[in-house]
Amino acid sequence: MRVVQKFGGSSVADAESIKRVAGRIVATRSAGNEVVVVISAMGDTTDELLDLAQQVSPNPRPRELDMLLTAGERMSAALLAMAINDLGADARSFTGSQAGVITTGTHGDARIIDITPGRIVSALSEGDIVIVAGFQGVSQTTKDVTTLGRGASDTTAVALAAALDAAYCEIYSDVDGVFTADPRIVPGARRIPEIGYEDMLELAANGAKILHLRCVEYARRENVPVHVRSSFSDRPGTWVKDMNEEDGMEQPLITGIAHDRSEAKITIVGVPDRVGEAADIFTAVADADINIDMIVQNVSSGDAHATDISFTLAQSDGAKAIAALEAVKARIGFTDVVYNDQVGKVSVVGVGMRSHPGVTARFFRALAEAGINIGMISTSEIRISVVVDIAEVDAAVRAGHTAFGLDAEGEAVVYAGTGR
Amino acid sequence: MRVVQKFGGSSVADAESIKRVAGRIVATRSAGNEVVVVISAMGDTTDELLDLAQQVSPNPRPRELDMLLTAGERMSAALLAMAINDLGADARSFTGSQAGVITTGTHGDARIIDITPGRIVSALSEGDIVIVAGFQGVSQTTKDVTTLGRGASDTTAVALAAALDAAYCEIYSDVDGVFTADPRIVPGARRIPEIGYEDMLELAANGAKILHLRCVEYARRENVPVHVRSSFSDRPGTWVKDMNEEDGMEQPLITGIAHDRSEAKITIVGVPDRVGEAADIFTAVADADINIDMIVQNVSSGDAHATDISFTLAQSDGAKAIAALEAVKARIGFTDVVYNDQVGKVSVVGVGMRSHPGVTARFFRALAEAGINIGMISTSEIRISVVVDIAEVDAAVRAGHTAFGLDAEGEAVVYAGTGR
Repeated sequence: MRVVQKFGGSSVADAESIKRVAGRIVATRSAGNEVVVVISAMGDTTDELLDLAQQVSPNPRPRELDMLLTAGERMSAALLAMAINDLGADARSFTGSQAGVITTGTHGDARIIDITPGRIVSALSEGDIVIVAGFQGVSQTTKDVTTLGRGASDTTAVALAAALDAAYCEIYSDVDGVFTADPRIVPGARRIPEIGYEDMLELAANGAKILHLRCVEYARRENVPVHVRSSFSDRPGTWVKDMNEEDGMEQPLITGIAHDRSEAKITIVGVPDRVGEAADIFTAVADADINIDMIVQNVSSGDAHATDISFTLAQSDGAKAIAALEAVKARIGFTDVVYNDQVGKVSVVGVGMRSHPGVTARFFRALAEAGINIGMISTSEIRISVVVDIAEVDAAVRAGHTAFGLDAEGEAVVYAGTGR
Repeated sequence: MRVVQKFGGSSVADAESIKRVAGRIVATRSAGNEVVVVISAMGDTTDELLDLAQQVSPNPRPRELDMLLTAGERMSAALLAMAINDLGADARSFTGSQAGVITTGTHGDARIIDITPGRIVSALSEGDIVIVAGFQGVSQTTKDVTTLGRGASDTTAVALAAALDAAYCEIYSDVDGVFTADPRIVPGARRIPEIGYEDMLELAANGAKILHLRCVEYARRENVPVHVRSSFSDRPGTWVKDMNEEDGMEQPLITGIAHDRSEAKITIVGVPDRVGEAADIFTAVADADINIDMIVQNVSSGDAHATDISFTLAQSDGAKAIAALEAVKARIGFTDVVYNDQVGKVSVVGVGMRSHPGVTARFFRALAEAGINIGMISTSEIRISVVVDIAEVDAAVRAGHTAFGLDAEGEAVVYAGTGR
């Protein structure tokens, strides 16, 4: 069987860790598999290189930053190959460019366009274990070295698994898999043995940090089964896969609860109630290259001929958004811009809710019973998200987890369908 | 004018040094030149990476070691480009592979086969300063990353200068140029303003560490003028160039004195005086992949029907050579193998001696007057080398320096020809 394994920076933080990971890889090879490994930079290497860049230039050009940062995975890939060779197995390391990871030219945040894994395939056919430097590729147009953005080694792994027609892709980290909620908030949270791509996408997009969003999108598009598991144990983790294939499989109503404390809310007060004002506002925000999450529009409290528009965005974009809005304030004629980063988003996710009305009502009732005030609401076909005060995020997660019967010990687990 | 500049690891040891070097490069660019820079790894980076490799595997495969080590120059190249950009100039960094440095496949000691500098030329034509990671290339056959052996960034620089048809190549280090002898041994040693390729080759091959031997060979073959100078001052250094072009130029009799303490002497005692015995011995040594420097054969002191054969070699090859000789001792029938690493080689070098007899006599007389016993002798058309006891190396260098009038203060400088 051909498998792809990805190990994160914490799994290869030092020489000892590298040797431990090497042992695990060799065991997979010895079991008769063809093995391709995607590796991140060792521990804090990326941060140390960023520090070095800062010492030399406060605003390094993205092309040069990519050139610098990609040294990190190159080093860990070579060291891991050495450690595997030291165990008597054959391993060869490749940079992203050598592995055929072709990307767009956006330095620091490139997207994978194509994989041309000729060198990997021939190394595998010679019996070698292949080690690929994650997080990096080569621009299709300029042939310059690119990075895919932080955490994107997961995406490299899934893209390689698809291009190599691997049986599955294993993503190793320091947690046991995907849980119904963050176990640090909900002690009764359970590991989810299997989860569909759509549920995983919604969880990842709404704050679950276990998998990179683009990685899940890639896995869904290419239908690559992904096994999320711990590099510190042999326990099974969570399989992310096409659940529609599971004939007769019963889906739980709610798969899990995600939360996100990295967003902020901006309220534009007193927007004149004229056609096109909202469009003008969001054009200004979009021109500043800012992604918006939720939007709510209300009649303004102060003026019946004006509205208030609220939206959420990443806190890291806050200052940029306020500057962009202040710049158009006079022209559009709104009263004020209010910024609030003391908010959090809690989302209940599950494809089961497609066929079952009443989920929204049950969630809101649970929040009300816990005395939690809902600031904003947004829904998709398989998700309900609310924005609450940051101090009430934990309580909202716990309330939802209990209301949908996800607690490991407590009321019976509720599934959509006949149960199992 | 198009120029190539090479800076060594001590010139880019930290962020401050990198900024200083960046300033020098920008000044060259601002003077209207097209500038290509070859850069070594920062300070001790290469040694640190070797340490890391040792922690993971006592015998890392050369391919993976090259993959690891080349990260060093990649980082310094990117950082230097950032520092230059920070000064408002445009710089782009390239790996050896991107710069088109095509090599043989011998990992750790590859040779440059060809340079295909397409990307460098287009970057120059766009007005950019080009930074190339030294010491590295890409194998013509396997497309794997290779290194040229330690110190070979000099060779990268000269090879690029040749391929780019640069006006000259500047090699920056922490010394002021090439001296008539090591100034630590001979306080009156003088900087040589200009030196021919042949003299420089002999000096480099016989212990002068200022330039890598292969670099000088490359410069001579491609007729690239090389300016060896200090990155810590603006003083002119030494120009290494084709001195035959200098019409009417008078050459000094002796250009300089080199010494080398890194060799050892092996004496094979009591070799039977039969045809082919010497050939058998040196076949055994060659099969062990050992380079031999000088050879001397004498009638054996103990037996008129046997000879003693002595040769010199690198101390680092000593153990390997003794093992190879002990393995053939019984078959060939010699008496003993004697190893001595308490020796040093002193060489007087100068193309002027071609047309002037008496140089050997003058050198030997000077050594005799200083009471120095000569162990072995070897000569080329433009060099006389002697092996002496290691304790007498300094005295031999000083005796030669004085005898050929090289001392800055002392007897008049003697030139072959009419003087100048």
